[in-house]
Amino acid sequence: MNEWHDALTRKLQAFKGLGPEDMEMLRELQKPRSLIESGKEVVYEGQYPHSAYILREGWACSYKRLRDGSRQIIDIQIPGDFLGLRSLLLRASDHSFLTITDVEVARLDRQRMLDVFRRTPRLAVGLMWAASRDEAMVVEHLVSIGRRGAFERTAHFLLELGERLKLVGIGDGRTYPCPISQSILADALGMTAIHINRVLRQLREAKIVVFRDGIVEFLDIKRAAEITGFEMAYLDQVPVN
Amino acid sequence: MNEWHDALTRKLQAFKGLGPEDMEMLRELQKPRSLIESGKEVVYEGQYPHSAYILREGWACSYKRLRDGSRQIIDIQIPGDFLGLRSLLLRASDHSFLTITDVEVARLDRQRMLDVFRRTPRLAVGLMWAASRDEAMVVEHLVSIGRRGAFERTAHFLLELGERLKLVGIGDGRTYPCPISQSILADALGMTAIHINRVLRQLREAKIVVFRDGIVEFLDIKRAAEITGFEMAYLDQVPVN
Repeated sequence: MNEWHDALTRKLQAFKGLGPEDMEMLRELQKPRSLIESGKEVVYEGQYPHSAYILREGWACSYKRLRDGSRQIIDIQIPGDFLGLRSLLLRASDHSFLTITDVEVARLDRQRMLDVFRRTPRLAVGLMWAASRDEAMVVEHLVSIGRRGAFERTAHFLLELGERLKLVGIGDGRTYPCPISQSILADALGMTAIHINRVLRQLREAKIVVFRDGIVEFLDIKRAAEITGFEMAYLDQVPVN
Repeated sequence: MNEWHDALTRKLQAFKGLGPEDMEMLRELQKPRSLIESGKEVVYEGQYPHSAYILREGWACSYKRLRDGSRQIIDIQIPGDFLGLRSLLLRASDHSFLTITDVEVARLDRQRMLDVFRRTPRLAVGLMWAASRDEAMVVEHLVSIGRRGAFERTAHFLLELGERLKLVGIGDGRTYPCPISQSILADALGMTAIHINRVLRQLREAKIVVFRDGIVEFLDIKRAAEITGFEMAYLDQVPVN
């Protein structure tokens, strides 16, 4: 994978319209890089001042912790995603980020982001597109938790993850590596660990999807999309017309 | 309320740093205005091309409808809010908007937004701040539906609404006009109409908050904040230090 095809660049190619100077800035933004091991908090709720990061390699999750100790995971971040881009404009970060695997990141502070807006407005629009897409996913998670049953909700989440990974060159949408634990999956789907375990077994027995040993494999992806009503337009990965 | 103190301007004053040319652009953006009556769909999911709107007066809600006919309301929009700003960069709108009351709006297309970014970058950052704050609310709704009980979730939602309205000069946070029906409230909180009715009665009997005849009145706002763990930092209405 050369410099021009890192995950963020691959993702932004779905947005189109970036010129050579945007690509140059995109490379510049991804330096310097640093490594953070798994299980570390990268940004925490209420942090001030706070930075955002480009996640170059590895997985993370964004979450909020409630006073009773429970946790709601808002989204999973995969290579090419931002950690905390959206809350960079808020006075303090409104949620936390935890690394799920060892990761490679590039740090972005507010000033650097404002430079992008001044110097490469087209790239800025591309980054806002990526942020819009991230929010479309949070909205879809809200819809899932509010109105989809546990079985459909879980399958929907795994379908979404497959499409997101495929866009950045990981897996083919049907089979993909997935280093997230059942406890993280439960907290992302508003369920308990026991409940998610049962639902994953039901999905396996229904021959829809198997999630085992860090691999997700859809056995019948067409049926999975049918039962969950998965419409990928909100991921904005394909042209509308 | 003069031209300088419309709801959007009041809201953006919480962000600070706007100069005279930003204020001029902000006034320009709010023209021409049009009236839309209550119960109308302003933007619909999948619409292409689609516009965004500044909601100058009145209330609306954003939602997604599922294939089984159920609906999840994502957020309520009040004066000074945008309808669909975030999805303007997506190829098609990823959700729908419905007017709850008669409203006055100003239309914003993609080109006009890009002009704002080119001509008044500080205002553009202010608008992105407003969009960031809107997403912080969606995140909080996800947390509520995923991890808060129905009683706490409902009180939390009414507390948030009070603070948002206060910022744009409507009510004092404790007592405010609220034209939303129980059916909309149920769809916002991932509950059934029967369930929300029972929870509102419980909140009234616990002398925490009364929602009746289009008015929300907190009887014990301190206790409401305590039981729900309401921390308004995510609304970014007050400086952190």
